[in-house]
Amino acid sequence: MELMNAVSRRTFMGGLAAALTYTGWRPGSRLFGQTAREQMSRPKVTVEEYERLAKLANNENPYGPSEAVLKAMTDAFKYANRYLYPDGGITEAIAAHHGVKPENILLGAGSGEILKVVGDTFLNVHKKVVGAEPTYGSVYAHATGIKAEAIKIPLLKDYRADIPAMISATRQNYRDVGFVYLCNPNNPTGVIVPKNEVRQLLDGIPGDVPVLIDEAYHHFVQDPDYATSVPYVLEGRQVIVTRTFSKIAGLAGMRLGYGIAPKELVENMRTFSTGSISAIVKWGGVAALNDTANEARVKKVTIELRNKVTSELKSMGYYVIPSEANFFMVHIRRDVVPVIEEFRKKNVAVGRAFPPMVQHLRVSIGTESEMSRFMTAFKEIIAAGKTSALG
Amino acid sequence: MELMNAVSRRTFMGGLAAALTYTGWRPGSRLFGQTAREQMSRPKVTVEEYERLAKLANNENPYGPSEAVLKAMTDAFKYANRYLYPDGGITEAIAAHHGVKPENILLGAGSGEILKVVGDTFLNVHKKVVGAEPTYGSVYAHATGIKAEAIKIPLLKDYRADIPAMISATRQNYRDVGFVYLCNPNNPTGVIVPKNEVRQLLDGIPGDVPVLIDEAYHHFVQDPDYATSVPYVLEGRQVIVTRTFSKIAGLAGMRLGYGIAPKELVENMRTFSTGSISAIVKWGGVAALNDTANEARVKKVTIELRNKVTSELKSMGYYVIPSEANFFMVHIRRDVVPVIEEFRKKNVAVGRAFPPMVQHLRVSIGTESEMSRFMTAFKEIIAAGKTSALG
Repeated sequence: MELMNAVSRRTFMGGLAAALTYTGWRPGSRLFGQTAREQMSRPKVTVEEYERLAKLANNENPYGPSEAVLKAMTDAFKYANRYLYPDGGITEAIAAHHGVKPENILLGAGSGEILKVVGDTFLNVHKKVVGAEPTYGSVYAHATGIKAEAIKIPLLKDYRADIPAMISATRQNYRDVGFVYLCNPNNPTGVIVPKNEVRQLLDGIPGDVPVLIDEAYHHFVQDPDYATSVPYVLEGRQVIVTRTFSKIAGLAGMRLGYGIAPKELVENMRTFSTGSISAIVKWGGVAALNDTANEARVKKVTIELRNKVTSELKSMGYYVIPSEANFFMVHIRRDVVPVIEEFRKKNVAVGRAFPPMVQHLRVSIGTESEMSRFMTAFKEIIAAGKTSALG
Repeated sequence: MELMNAVSRRTFMGGLAAALTYTGWRPGSRLFGQTAREQMSRPKVTVEEYERLAKLANNENPYGPSEAVLKAMTDAFKYANRYLYPDGGITEAIAAHHGVKPENILLGAGSGEILKVVGDTFLNVHKKVVGAEPTYGSVYAHATGIKAEAIKIPLLKDYRADIPAMISATRQNYRDVGFVYLCNPNNPTGVIVPKNEVRQLLDGIPGDVPVLIDEAYHHFVQDPDYATSVPYVLEGRQVIVTRTFSKIAGLAGMRLGYGIAPKELVENMRTFSTGSISAIVKWGGVAALNDTANEARVKKVTIELRNKVTSELKSMGYYVIPSEANFFMVHIRRDVVPVIEEFRKKNVAVGRAFPPMVQHLRVSIGTESEMSRFMTAFKEIIAAGKTSALG
């Protein structure tokens, strides 16, 4: 077969990897919504095309794992052939980091696995999830996959979550609600749910309704009105907080995340988890928790670049939603779909469309050079009105 | 917290890793039956204790991934921070390897994930799985977790699967059977289901009952009466064959396996899969498929060591079940549980008890030195009658 030949050629001849096609990339893909379900329908992109791209589509950390994390993972290759092995005490290290017990931690192959596990645990059979729209779509996609439903509450005009409406929807559908989903800060907007509104939500719904609070972008927040929801777990509330090593630690491809929840919830969820996590990323995760200098560096440079680019866009007259994450949304006053294609032709990958926000472009914060390429392309495509006929 | 301090000390001071405790090891654990569900109840073992062990408990490949595979994985660290990335064409490479289409392949984080996905897909709600007893337990453990049931058909006196009884049980419970499970060669016995008996099973049950055929130990088989069941997928039968990179390729800790099935079954199962596989093991998997020399080497040395040790045991008068896998079972004519403990005291980890075979000890094939240590311990513990009072 042709591809097998290509693979063999690469192996024998080395540098031909660039000639290979692969199925691993699609602009703006969400995690398991597409890597698992829609994998077969992806357009093929060559390695060469991939290398050329400014990668601003998937809210990745462009710097990758720190040296300390890479070293920890490389050292752990000695466990590559083992099912059971010393794992660096990853569960205990995470628990200690948050001041909770190991029994409160459920490891996942990325926090995406925990989102799926929460769906499997609390939406079965045919329950409903209550959440914002738009938000990180994988929770709703999984709900659809398992024949559950979503009650989607539109964002307010200023892009904040409509907490009173989420409370009402939960109370009115109490018998059918499996859990409430809150992404904080929210993806794709970058907007936080302030700590007093999180409390308002938790106090406003029946106490036995689980609330999944996805803090994937926690590490980039500066706003003092934000706070992590981990303390609610310690209070014994039915809260599941998820965190990931994909963003601040640059380990998206290595798949490590976790949920923090009361012991009973963790035990219920464990049944639905695979426990299938790479040996080496467990060691990488421990090293990442300890590498606070790298964490501070990534946060600082990401926010500096976000502020620089969004200031420039604002000075050009475009509205940018105030973001507390490693991405932002700019209102381009025309349909984003053809604009995304125009960027792609210039080798700049930006986020997909997030209906109903069809005139907002989501841009991840890449390296300084990637952000320069984005601004150059933006000026050519949008400010110069190249696609204005569509606006 | 104390553990956090320990973790920090290790980071700052290096070689203190040996002082850390961890939760990652338990003699004879099965994969997701325990890493996911029972993780909190494991006894702690230090890294130092782990290093001292002859590791003959988990059917691991003691040599680890080949140089080519390690190189491919190390090179792929550049994708460690990405969600979507060139993946080496792993799906296409696997499909080409088997002469099927990419649409027939479902990747998993180990074949254990595929076993779980098959359960989620076909046992929901409250269906039954038909299989042998004993066999690889994770399928039954997962069934219990999701409130499904198992119809367990005892092995025949000569440890072969009782195919006629499996056919009868499936036909009699037709409306309730979600799928039939066959592990070939079987774990923990190492005994194959001959190719004519696989056909007998498939022809003997209603054609719409899915049959999951777990070929984790495929690469170690020499018996000409065995054949892979992949051709049944090409015939369009409701067959799911699973394979893993954990055994012959030495990648258990990296988590990569797959299912091969008709397109429609793959699409049904995809909904339940996480798609959460480490970026680097995808490249490792492609390299492993190409490294046929290493595959042949691992097979040869494993079988040579198995034959050497089992011959010695037989010459001492012990019955050994003829195995076609990288492990074997020896009948020790007494309860295995205290014997396993005796081995453990001598730093030899052997397989757990597999009820109802409570007098059979399962031993994985380790390195030559590990097998010598096993034989020495065996002579001291069993042949010398140290625990014979229990026999």
